[in-house]
Amino acid sequence: MIGVFDSGLGGLTVVKEIRKSLPDADIIYLGDTARVPYGTRSSETIRKFAEEDTKFLLDKNVELIVVACNTVSSLALDVVKKFSNVSVLGVINPATKKALKVSKLKKIGLVGTRATVNSNAYKEVTMRRQASMLVPLIEEGFIEGPEIDLFIKKYFSDFKDRVDALILGCTHYPLIKDNINNYLGGKIKLIDPAEEVAKEVYEIAKDFKGTSKTRYFLTDVNKRFLETAKMFLGEDILDKVAKVEI
Amino acid sequence: MIGVFDSGLGGLTVVKEIRKSLPDADIIYLGDTARVPYGTRSSETIRKFAEEDTKFLLDKNVELIVVACNTVSSLALDVVKKFSNVSVLGVINPATKKALKVSKLKKIGLVGTRATVNSNAYKEVTMRRQASMLVPLIEEGFIEGPEIDLFIKKYFSDFKDRVDALILGCTHYPLIKDNINNYLGGKIKLIDPAEEVAKEVYEIAKDFKGTSKTRYFLTDVNKRFLETAKMFLGEDILDKVAKVEI
Repeated sequence: MIGVFDSGLGGLTVVKEIRKSLPDADIIYLGDTARVPYGTRSSETIRKFAEEDTKFLLDKNVELIVVACNTVSSLALDVVKKFSNVSVLGVINPATKKALKVSKLKKIGLVGTRATVNSNAYKEVTMRRQASMLVPLIEEGFIEGPEIDLFIKKYFSDFKDRVDALILGCTHYPLIKDNINNYLGGKIKLIDPAEEVAKEVYEIAKDFKGTSKTRYFLTDVNKRFLETAKMFLGEDILDKVAKVEI
Repeated sequence: MIGVFDSGLGGLTVVKEIRKSLPDADIIYLGDTARVPYGTRSSETIRKFAEEDTKFLLDKNVELIVVACNTVSSLALDVVKKFSNVSVLGVINPATKKALKVSKLKKIGLVGTRATVNSNAYKEVTMRRQASMLVPLIEEGFIEGPEIDLFIKKYFSDFKDRVDALILGCTHYPLIKDNINNYLGGKIKLIDPAEEVAKEVYEIAKDFKGTSKTRYFLTDVNKRFLETAKMFLGEDILDKVAKVEI
């Protein structure tokens, strides 16, 4: 069984990618929707939350933990590993590996939450920008139109002619990948960490026996969260979701 | 001692108003910055958080609890009252009273978080709109410029010619009151619940003896939160702040 966790629902993009390559796998997803977002909080608080998320998944007897959240991967991957007796994968290394592979100039950009960008993670990037408004905009459904275009211009214009690969360092951003690509004129290769970590999950979990089940545990559930989940996953989770306290 | 709480830092606008009329009062502020925002979460979770916030303030021996948060005032004021053996003031009643007083046509609008607007609170309003992006925009410092203007147009245009009083139903909104007023051409009276609740606090607390102390308790502290606090309060809280778990 593969355990995936995220601060909220963005990590469902990682579940979607894993499911593509491992149709038989059993997957448990934990989204800390009662405390999302993590990316604006202190390192101390993020590390405390990461510990609680990890213990919840271990109690469910997962054989592999995937930290879908870039903020946790950046600031607390050591915490997750410390408490785990199973393999742990974060999104930083797979994304960085891909960026180094596709960047000809070795000029790599990173956009992410304030916590991710201010952390010491993603050491190989040569230019980093926080893009704090993108998460709420995407969660509110502003994935196209003048509002998101205004902020894409704000956050991405500096990267033009300065990098040739750009890590989308938050699970929300792939939802506006096409708009970003259009704005950048297709000149910068965009790296989606969800796709890259899914490849590493495949290598570890390809021989796991499973029954194709996915269960979703959320620390808060309301109508809006279920709509947001559908936006990230492309399908309803209504009959597979349970509310939990962690 | 007066206890004030909010989901985050917006409630500092209420502290600021109370301080104006009661310079000698002792005030304790609790901001649940580890779990802000509340306005996107379920009623069940908001009520649980409200109970925890209330118990924290009661443990500090406050003589009056002011619920600065519109979301908690809308969905969980009964919870706060249930656990309190002291007076409790929310922002709904004071704001509604003022709106009824200034509205000649009895056409009253409300802007607030999704949870506030979808609740049964603010029964007297005749038109309500959620404005979920305003909180993150203001917290990120977009209090003037094309970004906030775009969203003010989006959220406030419907109110034109339909109401003559408008309740700013979230402690963040007073920071962009002038922009909203400009956009509406000064034709709609804007009600700031922080100002109105402060008047009721004055009536209850004017005879309290105090030493002009204010202490700030936050469930998460980082540089950014301190900057945001300064934006709401107009002064630094650095040497008066303590991090707490609730």
